[in-house]
Amino acid sequence: MRCDIIIDRDVEVADGDKSFFIPVSSSSDGETKIDTHRTKVQWKRKSVVTFALTVLTSSQAILIVWSKRAGKYEYSVTTANFLVETLKCAISLVALARAWMTEGVTENNRLTTTLDEVIVYPIPAALYLVKNLLQYYIFAYVDAPGYQILKNFNIISTGVLYRIILKKKLSEIQWAAFVLLTAGCTTAQLNSNSDHVLQTPVQGWVMAIVMALLSGFAGVYTEAIIKKRPARNINVQNFWLYIFGMGFNVVAILVQDFDAVVNKGFFHGYSFITFLMILNHALSGIAVSMVMKYADNIVKVYSTSVAMLLTAIVSVFLFGFHLSLAFFLGTIVVSVSIYLHSAGKMQR
Amino acid sequence: MRCDIIIDRDVEVADGDKSFFIPVSSSSDGETKIDTHRTKVQWKRKSVVTFALTVLTSSQAILIVWSKRAGKYEYSVTTANFLVETLKCAISLVALARAWMTEGVTENNRLTTTLDEVIVYPIPAALYLVKNLLQYYIFAYVDAPGYQILKNFNIISTGVLYRIILKKKLSEIQWAAFVLLTAGCTTAQLNSNSDHVLQTPVQGWVMAIVMALLSGFAGVYTEAIIKKRPARNINVQNFWLYIFGMGFNVVAILVQDFDAVVNKGFFHGYSFITFLMILNHALSGIAVSMVMKYADNIVKVYSTSVAMLLTAIVSVFLFGFHLSLAFFLGTIVVSVSIYLHSAGKMQR
Repeated sequence: MRCDIIIDRDVEVADGDKSFFIPVSSSSDGETKIDTHRTKVQWKRKSVVTFALTVLTSSQAILIVWSKRAGKYEYSVTTANFLVETLKCAISLVALARAWMTEGVTENNRLTTTLDEVIVYPIPAALYLVKNLLQYYIFAYVDAPGYQILKNFNIISTGVLYRIILKKKLSEIQWAAFVLLTAGCTTAQLNSNSDHVLQTPVQGWVMAIVMALLSGFAGVYTEAIIKKRPARNINVQNFWLYIFGMGFNVVAILVQDFDAVVNKGFFHGYSFITFLMILNHALSGIAVSMVMKYADNIVKVYSTSVAMLLTAIVSVFLFGFHLSLAFFLGTIVVSVSIYLHSAGKMQR
Repeated sequence: MRCDIIIDRDVEVADGDKSFFIPVSSSSDGETKIDTHRTKVQWKRKSVVTFALTVLTSSQAILIVWSKRAGKYEYSVTTANFLVETLKCAISLVALARAWMTEGVTENNRLTTTLDEVIVYPIPAALYLVKNLLQYYIFAYVDAPGYQILKNFNIISTGVLYRIILKKKLSEIQWAAFVLLTAGCTTAQLNSNSDHVLQTPVQGWVMAIVMALLSGFAGVYTEAIIKKRPARNINVQNFWLYIFGMGFNVVAILVQDFDAVVNKGFFHGYSFITFLMILNHALSGIAVSMVMKYADNIVKVYSTSVAMLLTAIVSVFLFGFHLSLAFFLGTIVVSVSIYLHSAGKMQR
């Protein structure tokens, strides 16, 4: 199954140093060899980051189940989010330092930037902030399991915005596959209370759709930013994305948890699992960036959908969960969707 | 949606008078016109019989719901089945009489037959008889709603036997569509008790698979018989199929309901709805034969699946049924499957 996901469209180049990414067609045998080698390297890198994202996302959900079993969240979520962003920044800097030592400081890996480059970087962080704020209000209209089901609108919104904003085409078969991915993921999540979601008031539906559009837009916009300079070192791009993420989370701490942090301390209520979750979120975040750089949002959506199914399967062994008939049916539909996504590509 | 179903493969010719069915390629303008006309007539006939089958199957299910609401079955099912076969025979004879009056008696519409032609005709009726007998025993292992879910194996078995026995190819996309049709129909039927079916003992699974194979084989075998002589009048073919159906049902009356018929009378417990159901079953049976003649088993499976969904939708208005989220998801998957079946054909 993994194979089907990672065979995806090539990195498209908007501008900048194209020679590094586009295999240049050439009549000389030597250069053709280099092209084949480059395509292989690209394919391998795409596979590795997609695989990493799938494993990290699925272990993320398992950590959440584990921490819920261990007791309620007692730490403040805003401080944890701030630490995630800080850790991502630190990891990017370490990776950059290694690059400077091997390659030296170049135009593409230097940390300094221009206003022109950096001005769009706060936008995804701001969009996610708005989406997360809305999340508090949607629970007035939908319960948590219902929200899990409505979140599948994200899949469709990502596909639509990917088409509109990045102007990349999906074949008709691939669109059919995307509709199936949405239906399959939702089916896999069905339980005896799922029908409640059909009683969601109009405000709930509207908010769910707005949140899906915000989240889809943030994802697609991040891809646009990262792909705009393909030769730019991904760690520099990540550093600037995460710096703004840190900034927004400082604001969130001040607004939401200022009293708790001052009275009980920054690390109040942290446990070993909390630190594991922060580490996992940081690595997942970096994996998402890598998938945006070397693959795209469509691969990301397939990867996280497969992760959702993997989580359920692993939970059978870890927590003695029972899989429902709906889960099996959803898994069949998602598997066919993955097949159709790659089959639809070949027939374009 | 109807359009997608009926655009299907052409009638394949095994032997016999081919000129009537295969549009002959030709360089003369006049003949090309006739070919186009023939293709149109074939397409129209296919559409009409498929539409009729869909409407009849869906109203069949509605009549069953209606009769259940009106009270328990009090008539003997074997006498009703006998009347269905007799009515089908009578309708075929009336249609034949009309053909004799307009065309005169020809090689293709005469009722007399040879042993060679008629010897295979009892086989589908015998297969259905065995399947119906098994149906009594499977309920020792599965409850009725569980059996409804397991019956979806029919879809896959029909596809597999269609490929093996009739040697007709489906494209990979069409196979994917067939898997989706099975998953989608099952999803649409899910309810809060559906997970019970996962606890079915091995004997139950084996019987469900054997029954699906018997029913698939009977369907595919009927198509093989009917298509063997494409120019043969369908009403003659039906007459001989139904004569054996009548015979088998006489045996069933003698074995199962002899005492009831002797003591209470043949029509004991019949109501207006019973007669409506007999009429509907007879017309549906003829529609199935027509679909086998002018389309194929794949069209039949899609048509009855759509009928299942239509029944549920109509029941909302007639009986105040509530549609579940699973039903909506299943309907989406079935709709995509229908699209893929026709898209997959074009890309072969």
